[in-house]
Amino acid sequence: MTQNIYDSPAFFSAYSALPRSVHGLDGAPEWPTLQAMLPDLAGARVLDLGCGFGWFCRWAAGQGASSVLGIDVSERMLERASTETDAVAITYERADLEGFVPEPAGFDLAYSSLAFHYLVDLGDLLARVAVALPIGGRLVCSVEHPLMTAPVLQGWSRDGAGRAAWSVNGYLDEGPRTTDWLAKGVVKQHRTIATYLDLLSRNGFALQRLVEWGPSPEQVLAHPEWARERERPAFLLMAAQRV
Amino acid sequence: MTQNIYDSPAFFSAYSALPRSVHGLDGAPEWPTLQAMLPDLAGARVLDLGCGFGWFCRWAAGQGASSVLGIDVSERMLERASTETDAVAITYERADLEGFVPEPAGFDLAYSSLAFHYLVDLGDLLARVAVALPIGGRLVCSVEHPLMTAPVLQGWSRDGAGRAAWSVNGYLDEGPRTTDWLAKGVVKQHRTIATYLDLLSRNGFALQRLVEWGPSPEQVLAHPEWARERERPAFLLMAAQRV
Repeated sequence: MTQNIYDSPAFFSAYSALPRSVHGLDGAPEWPTLQAMLPDLAGARVLDLGCGFGWFCRWAAGQGASSVLGIDVSERMLERASTETDAVAITYERADLEGFVPEPAGFDLAYSSLAFHYLVDLGDLLARVAVALPIGGRLVCSVEHPLMTAPVLQGWSRDGAGRAAWSVNGYLDEGPRTTDWLAKGVVKQHRTIATYLDLLSRNGFALQRLVEWGPSPEQVLAHPEWARERERPAFLLMAAQRV
Repeated sequence: MTQNIYDSPAFFSAYSALPRSVHGLDGAPEWPTLQAMLPDLAGARVLDLGCGFGWFCRWAAGQGASSVLGIDVSERMLERASTETDAVAITYERADLEGFVPEPAGFDLAYSSLAFHYLVDLGDLLARVAVALPIGGRLVCSVEHPLMTAPVLQGWSRDGAGRAAWSVNGYLDEGPRTTDWLAKGVVKQHRTIATYLDLLSRNGFALQRLVEWGPSPEQVLAHPEWARERERPAFLLMAAQRV
């Protein structure tokens, strides 16, 4: 079973204070790029895998989705998500993505933001999601970029000229990584980009677009403290179609 | 025009001494993986973009290719390539890949080993190559991995625990990088993986497989001096189909 760090009080408290938890989609700098990879949601049946506080679910309902099912393993997050909407199109369900079986052909879009890198067996989930989508159905997701998950010990160093450089090692050795992000002992699964693409194609998806996301030069102008984030991408965004 | 470093005497001399120049395909540790991405060559019309000393051209002819056209900008390399074969199926032609126009629908496979990262306008070449292939025709190529081309100053450092780490910066800023590989002032073009995939799909190719290549654990056992090469991939291998 995947670690459910989100229900640990210390992590939940720290996570709740992040800009993306306070400001929702507008607090997630990669959101405009991810949004542009989405299909038209009017009348669509939407599945959100790892919905957290439900920001995307509420946004999808606002775009005219006919139904939105938000799945999360965190009881605390779903409690808050439920209090923040009365949209009849939205349903929340507590489930572990490692075992959750969505209704066959029950959805038009499967969406997931920054959840897949927690899963030990992502291929198994993708196979279940593929069954839940018709041919032509869409999958749009973000994960931590493999350059973020690879290092055994995350951190910056300096190159020979003194410029900030991200220290990369362990890239080709996939598997669990334990970091102290917001709380001690958070376990994420490192996979290469090649493996993400293989998992998609082996489970019935054709990649439509891949983005290695870092802040744009314009975003850095507005937030000079993000400059170092252009040295290496933080997120990997993928859009795929069920084939 | 792309820099033709291969005809500079110092570079040519150093390049000629590399294991892959002395031992050919068997001296290129990524070759078994790249080979496995190739279609059956019996009766195929093969185009080798950046053929160098012609090792792949001779191998392709040996696999029963009906014709093999090797293109390279280096006069010195083609001179040596020509002396090393009398196979009637093989033709060598000196041309700059930035302008070379292959015969429309004239080939079944376009192959390129470690040449595309020198090209300023790779999209333009891919468009010309797409025209040279029938629907279903194949493109198999290798480039330096973006983790190799990104850093402004290539090199290793140590992470916080003293383990070797590859210093990555400049990843999101594409464009020329000048390195001192074998000779001073070698210019390569840095592109992200996302950009390679975009260039393929925009120019009529569907990706079939992508490999981020580093030596396998078995290869490291046989060559312990390669251990560090598993910290980050050195090459990006791609197989695509004309659609």
